[in-house]
Amino acid sequence: MTNFTALTGRVLAACADMARFTEVEGQITRPFLAPSAGLVHEYLRSWAFRLGLATRLDAVGNLRARLESRVPGAPTLYIGSHLDTVPNAGAFDGVLGVVMGFALVEAVQGRELPFSVEVLGFSEEEGVRFAVPFLGSRALVGSAQAMLSLTDAEGVSVQEAISAFGLRPDSLPDSLPDSLPEALADANTLGYLEVHIEQGPVLQDLGASVGVVEAIVGQSRLELTFRGRASHAGTTPMHLRRDALAAAARFMVACEERARQTGGLVATVGVVNVKPGAGNVVPGEVVCSLDLRHARDGVRREALAELLSQAQTFATERQVTLTTTTKLDEAATPMSEPFRALLHRAASDANLIHPDLVSGAGHDAQIMAQRMPAAMLFVRSPNGLSHHPDEMVLETDVQDALRVGVRFLELLAQEVQGA
Amino acid sequence: MTNFTALTGRVLAACADMARFTEVEGQITRPFLAPSAGLVHEYLRSWAFRLGLATRLDAVGNLRARLESRVPGAPTLYIGSHLDTVPNAGAFDGVLGVVMGFALVEAVQGRELPFSVEVLGFSEEEGVRFAVPFLGSRALVGSAQAMLSLTDAEGVSVQEAISAFGLRPDSLPDSLPDSLPEALADANTLGYLEVHIEQGPVLQDLGASVGVVEAIVGQSRLELTFRGRASHAGTTPMHLRRDALAAAARFMVACEERARQTGGLVATVGVVNVKPGAGNVVPGEVVCSLDLRHARDGVRREALAELLSQAQTFATERQVTLTTTTKLDEAATPMSEPFRALLHRAASDANLIHPDLVSGAGHDAQIMAQRMPAAMLFVRSPNGLSHHPDEMVLETDVQDALRVGVRFLELLAQEVQGA
Repeated sequence: MTNFTALTGRVLAACADMARFTEVEGQITRPFLAPSAGLVHEYLRSWAFRLGLATRLDAVGNLRARLESRVPGAPTLYIGSHLDTVPNAGAFDGVLGVVMGFALVEAVQGRELPFSVEVLGFSEEEGVRFAVPFLGSRALVGSAQAMLSLTDAEGVSVQEAISAFGLRPDSLPDSLPDSLPEALADANTLGYLEVHIEQGPVLQDLGASVGVVEAIVGQSRLELTFRGRASHAGTTPMHLRRDALAAAARFMVACEERARQTGGLVATVGVVNVKPGAGNVVPGEVVCSLDLRHARDGVRREALAELLSQAQTFATERQVTLTTTTKLDEAATPMSEPFRALLHRAASDANLIHPDLVSGAGHDAQIMAQRMPAAMLFVRSPNGLSHHPDEMVLETDVQDALRVGVRFLELLAQEVQGA
Repeated sequence: MTNFTALTGRVLAACADMARFTEVEGQITRPFLAPSAGLVHEYLRSWAFRLGLATRLDAVGNLRARLESRVPGAPTLYIGSHLDTVPNAGAFDGVLGVVMGFALVEAVQGRELPFSVEVLGFSEEEGVRFAVPFLGSRALVGSAQAMLSLTDAEGVSVQEAISAFGLRPDSLPDSLPDSLPEALADANTLGYLEVHIEQGPVLQDLGASVGVVEAIVGQSRLELTFRGRASHAGTTPMHLRRDALAAAARFMVACEERARQTGGLVATVGVVNVKPGAGNVVPGEVVCSLDLRHARDGVRREALAELLSQAQTFATERQVTLTTTTKLDEAATPMSEPFRALLHRAASDANLIHPDLVSGAGHDAQIMAQRMPAAMLFVRSPNGLSHHPDEMVLETDVQDALRVGVRFLELLAQEVQGA
């Protein structure tokens, strides 16, 4: 039997240890393939060594550690998350999921599993250095080639960054797809499991330690520009104004109302820029953002169409013009039904409440889902805090997640053997 | 009979000529007592010389030109406006009113008036250089002493600026009140008339060339700070948000609604600063401005109290805190009823429509009104434009204003003689 208390201690110790590997003293700041990423890799390789796992870095810098099944031709289950962080991050976003992969392998390594387990530590997920997220998982599923020429703030390309890290520079970009066929291009893949902190307050609000992700939301991100006419705040009567902010404010209110009325919809205006921006001048122009997310693309698109129509009405009523630019329109990703069912059964067997919830943020699982069944287990985020130095997890919650993970592997093994 | 066409031509030519006197080539930028102010003074002194008027600069640099009545002990009517400008100004804001004073004197100088006329070209009204407006008129009514130690961006004080301009430096600050008693401290003052461009679109909207100012609005200016909690736009459901902008947007909508429902009230939110200000982060803090104006202080204060109460409700509903800071609370200034009646009669005699309107901006007349009857005649501002290089007046409107002004002087003369 697994000693969950001890294993939980090792998980938390590993997260704390790796929090020391940073590019900025006093913070956790670990961008894609920075020197601190190499220290994280060495740390995890030594854990893999103790467990007797084969490890390698693939062409895009993903750390991969493999527990080989003794069953000939056994399929592979992938477990992982990412090892990069946002600037001044917490110690658990991403890292926890990779560490959980190692811990789960440690828990089951003595057993005869009918599948191999490969732990994935993705090199890039946050999109900080190259402004596009999911480099690591995209490379794994074979959709990263177009990203090789992206450049960071210093003009260094993805290809050059990979090369500078010492990763098979001679064979790029051809090396990227070749990380794939060995396991993913054939049918011999069971799927992908990612454990991740929720990064939101839902599980805390429900009093649950873990939750099963139903889907990763689809997202619309837009920029709206309301153009009216700047005029004197004292001498322009209300009926002769063309107040861009008055129109934009109605739109903001409509966004909040629509999202409150629509289950699961979140709508956020996070940016508002007002010109000329003086207290005694009626605003002539307002540029604002809209971030709209839902697990069902139809719901999101219907809400978007209605909000844009309302925005146009608010603008027209005030002789204000409206232009909109779509910055992002990303479809939702449902998680694998069979894997979700296994996670629910596992949590139930562990005597835990196990709510379904939607991931409002993007994750590597949505990329992996393009090629295999994918699922996510969320761990409660106290106060919903993430991307912040105070980000944390509760020890008992991590232990719950380990229990669910181990039981998930047992149930999966039964299924594979029964098949 | 006055040749109004020729006189209008001289008014517009004078405005155009003085527009060349500027501190910034290619703009009209003429701050308090800059060298270009001296050129304006010389230009107007030569006009006064042609008219045979005595001129002087008083201690704060107001240009004063006097048409002396031959009636012993005759009272004085003041006519004027200001000669300074905002940066990159138009050619008429302020200047037009001073030039109108000279033109009206020119129109009536051959007649035997039972009052003296003193044309005032105030040296400072815009508040650009020392951040406090109305230096010129405040000095005239004896309330400028406290301003002498104010300093400009270069650390030069009002007192030093006056001294540098060559104005009786040895007797400051005692020289300021002494500009007053000669005419204003006794009862021998008829009042003050100011002609000014409207700086708003009301007269254009009404199809009127001129309008009679009922009152100069009172103003409230506040800063509101809504503090909620920044959180992830994807992972924070609507019911668990503390969105500072959602509260602030409701407040902005309420401001527009309240002002639309209340005759004469204008409410403007011109500044909105959102933190952290990222499209995918629920706003944690919003600082916004409120500018509220009305001709009746009771109406303004009642509206302000209601709006702040609503803002508090919107904040509380979202677990957001609200703090407010009052930046300005200035009472309204009603214009002189007898003078307004004379202006209406004069405009009626000139076969003009002559709407009452409220001044939404501050003017020297509100300072002069502290010591004597004061009135303002507004001239239509095409497109409501002012404080802008494209600010303009229509030639026919200036002619209408001259007709009203001359008739006003005739009617006033009748009243004084009849009294």
